[in-house]
Amino acid sequence: AVGLGAASAPQPPNILLLLMDDMGWGDLGVYGEPSRETPNLDRMAAEGMLFPNFYSANPLCSPSRAALLTGRLPIRNGFYTTNAHARNAYTPQEIVGGIPDSELLLPKLLKEAGYASKIVGKWHLGHRPQFHPLKHGFDEWFGSPNCHFGPYDNRARPNIPVYRDREMVGRFYEEFPINLKTGEANLTQIYLQEALDFIKRQQARQRPFFLYWAIDATHAPVYASKPFLGTSRRGRYGDAVREIDDSVGKILGLLGDLSLRDNTFVFFTSDNGAALVSAPRQGGSNGPFLCGKQTTFEGGMREPAIAWWPGVSYQLGSVMDLFTTSLSLAGLKPPGDRAIDGLDLLPAMLQGRLTDRPIFYYRGNTLMAVTLGQYKAHFWTWTNSWEEFRRGVDFCPGQNVSGVTTHTQEEHTELPLIFHLGRDPGERFPLRFDSAEYLDALGRISPVVRQHQGALVPGQPQLNMCDRAVMNWAPPGCEKLGKCLTPPEPAPEKCSWPH
Amino acid sequence: AVGLGAASAPQPPNILLLLMDDMGWGDLGVYGEPSRETPNLDRMAAEGMLFPNFYSANPLCSPSRAALLTGRLPIRNGFYTTNAHARNAYTPQEIVGGIPDSELLLPKLLKEAGYASKIVGKWHLGHRPQFHPLKHGFDEWFGSPNCHFGPYDNRARPNIPVYRDREMVGRFYEEFPINLKTGEANLTQIYLQEALDFIKRQQARQRPFFLYWAIDATHAPVYASKPFLGTSRRGRYGDAVREIDDSVGKILGLLGDLSLRDNTFVFFTSDNGAALVSAPRQGGSNGPFLCGKQTTFEGGMREPAIAWWPGVSYQLGSVMDLFTTSLSLAGLKPPGDRAIDGLDLLPAMLQGRLTDRPIFYYRGNTLMAVTLGQYKAHFWTWTNSWEEFRRGVDFCPGQNVSGVTTHTQEEHTELPLIFHLGRDPGERFPLRFDSAEYLDALGRISPVVRQHQGALVPGQPQLNMCDRAVMNWAPPGCEKLGKCLTPPEPAPEKCSWPH
Ligand SMILES: [Ca+2]
Ligand SMILES: [Ca+2]
Repeated sequence: AVGLGAASAPQPPNILLLLMDDMGWGDLGVYGEPSRETPNLDRMAAEGMLFPNFYSANPLCSPSRAALLTGRLPIRNGFYTTNAHARNAYTPQEIVGGIPDSELLLPKLLKEAGYASKIVGKWHLGHRPQFHPLKHGFDEWFGSPNCHFGPYDNRARPNIPVYRDREMVGRFYEEFPINLKTGEANLTQIYLQEALDFIKRQQARQRPFFLYWAIDATHAPVYASKPFLGTSRRGRYGDAVREIDDSVGKILGLLGDLSLRDNTFVFFTSDNGAALVSAPRQGGSNGPFLCGKQTTFEGGMREPAIAWWPGVSYQLGSVMDLFTTSLSLAGLKPPGDRAIDGLDLLPAMLQGRLTDRPIFYYRGNTLMAVTLGQYKAHFWTWTNSWEEFRRGVDFCPGQNVSGVTTHTQEEHTELPLIFHLGRDPGERFPLRFDSAEYLDALGRISPVVRQHQGALVPGQPQLNMCDRAVMNWAPPGCEKLGKCLTPPEPAPEKCSWPH
Repeated sequence: AVGLGAASAPQPPNILLLLMDDMGWGDLGVYGEPSRETPNLDRMAAEGMLFPNFYSANPLCSPSRAALLTGRLPIRNGFYTTNAHARNAYTPQEIVGGIPDSELLLPKLLKEAGYASKIVGKWHLGHRPQFHPLKHGFDEWFGSPNCHFGPYDNRARPNIPVYRDREMVGRFYEEFPINLKTGEANLTQIYLQEALDFIKRQQARQRPFFLYWAIDATHAPVYASKPFLGTSRRGRYGDAVREIDDSVGKILGLLGDLSLRDNTFVFFTSDNGAALVSAPRQGGSNGPFLCGKQTTFEGGMREPAIAWWPGVSYQLGSVMDLFTTSLSLAGLKPPGDRAIDGLDLLPAMLQGRLTDRPIFYYRGNTLMAVTLGQYKAHFWTWTNSWEEFRRGVDFCPGQNVSGVTTHTQEEHTELPLIFHLGRDPGERFPLRFDSAEYLDALGRISPVVRQHQGALVPGQPQLNMCDRAVMNWAPPGCEKLGKCLTPPEPAPEKCSWPH
């Protein structure tokens, strides 16, 4: 991707987003994982540009992915809930909602510049037919609409379908087996082949492509194919990481072989922090950061991020920037009729120009925290409820920062907790309220928050209603497979979001 | 150092040990420090061999350094105390003891192969004249016998002397100023010049050299020289790291300029984990590991370690290995009349041959824990006392692993806590006592511990007695400077070691 700056390119650059699922900041060798089992990603980083300060848009899959593809915070694009205060919501099988038609997704916009688009892997923006990827700009899809949880009995709950384009081609634990006991599944290999085939086909057609490789082997239940099982020093989670690393090596290798390297923008990141609640066997590492997935501490939202571009960039980045940056690479502008939160990273990458911008950390419609420069202010703290914590649900195992990792929702809007993330990346030492540094940081953060909140027009929340009748009983294509199930009677109810 | 394997070398390779003070595993970019401010050390690692699993011999300065230079555990070489159970001891100004004459130090042994030896920086093996470096094999010394604590009033307690060879040339906070308010001190620059000068002189003389560069800018009170102050994103501690990184770059650069690169073994590590009790302004980072300096958790004893040699090695390593490896490079054998704990790393480095060996974690004469392969067993757990903890002395800030980070000394010798360090480097999830994995790990660890303890002949403890009269009142050379102080009457007493 070295030649991206060249104006002489015959066509706009290809765009390849490698989006991991629940992979943490600390899971790659280049980010300090002690076992150092990611030689291909480490090489990508050595040849590329590392973003040590790169953030997801939410500590959970669906909202983070909706934000990536729309360039907009979940509070704007509707991927949130108002059922209770400050709750994370996503798209399980019983969700009624999904990505609204009013949202403009990256693949749809890239069509204007002639791009062919494919999603491989997990969609998670709604599984009902009106929400599918091909309804929102993708030309191709191989993967699933929901997480690969299961197996289910196809009575109380159907197994999750796997789609090729518009139709189901099988279900997890059936045609696409995942062995929960051994951890064996061939899915990453299938997703790898889908990526390689797509790239080769577009190269043959001389068409610019957008490939969104959204694989999920590092989301519990974690899995790997046989050649990788048992090969990691880190256990099964590490096996999954090793297979992903190997696959990324093969994809980058193909780009080289096809001489696409200089005209392809490749970006690697993850949708949210490692799920420490599943650690150590089914969850990864957030390195030196506090807590994990589900939380608005750094462990929940700071992500590994590598652009295939030389250097290190201290630009505060967000997955939403991939939307705006991709449009910029294609010579397009983001839609002018709506607020866009994504930033064009090209000035940071090509000219080293840093932009002072905030990172907002939401749970539901509650602004929990904001980072500006090196300072992070928490307006609300919450890990999870005492009730759940006492049952063993722990998003911060082994970590306990007094007054910070709280099990009741604590409001600090009048006097936020502020951390200096350079000196204290682990959010362990709040600045003293009476220090000059605190007052100075607060003085810079407050107007940014006021401006954000004053101008904010929340989207209609899409993740409030659930109904067992909308589950994947009879997805398109089920007839051909003889795999249609009979849905129960509709019984809509408010979804319960405990976190 | 690439050509070290060549048998055709005209003389044995030079040996350069870069020993940091209280620098943590997580303090370098290559080990995942988010600010990534160590380009020279990261390059050294990229050109060299990283040891992700490398350990100090003790979580405190003096015993760790005594072990490095003798190749022997502190329990053997006497650098421990028996004043109370499981206590860390070191060499403050009032210590009566020091390195015994019966110990054979690396520079003394290297003399047999014609090496010229110099220590630059902190000695910490006893400050009374009989313990000085030049009495134990070093040809030259520039630096200090104790930590750079102070300033003192030269009445209740003298300022720490700085030596050139056999004589004091000034004192910290006097001729060698450290500004505690601004953090400014020129010491790292002086230590750098001492290193460069020594290397150039030995090169001119065509003599193999051993340089032990034991600098201390990252030990509280941390300091940096003016050009580096305020330049780090991490605050003053980061300023110190940046100056060290720059200095290492200059030293490696000189080796290149003098064409010494292929015949010099360079190794970078630290004497113990980051002092989290001083974080975030005066202490570093132990990355994903538990607790810090003073403790026998991974944060206390796992160290950054880089050999200037290509690759990554999973060999469990120890600072004591630098003793045996250095002798091996010089064509010498370790003394045969005593137990040596250091391993020759050359087979691991040159042929990738891994040796299964234990890492022992001691506090005083108590074996707290042992690591064998990926498994670590804790026989005793203790962070520090409730009494001190309640006063704010916290070696594990923000961390709290139930039953592991204990504030009373907890014995687990019958049923040790066992962690898998690959899956769980942060020591958060002890294996279940009734699991097959636990029983298997215990079955392999137990005989190793029995053998170790059965064969152990503890050395005479050297760190039990303290006396204000032995402080640095009138070090050799004080007359020339007019800096002799009058010592008080001898009043020997047992030292108090609270941790
Ligand atoms: Ca996720
Ligand atoms: Ca130390």
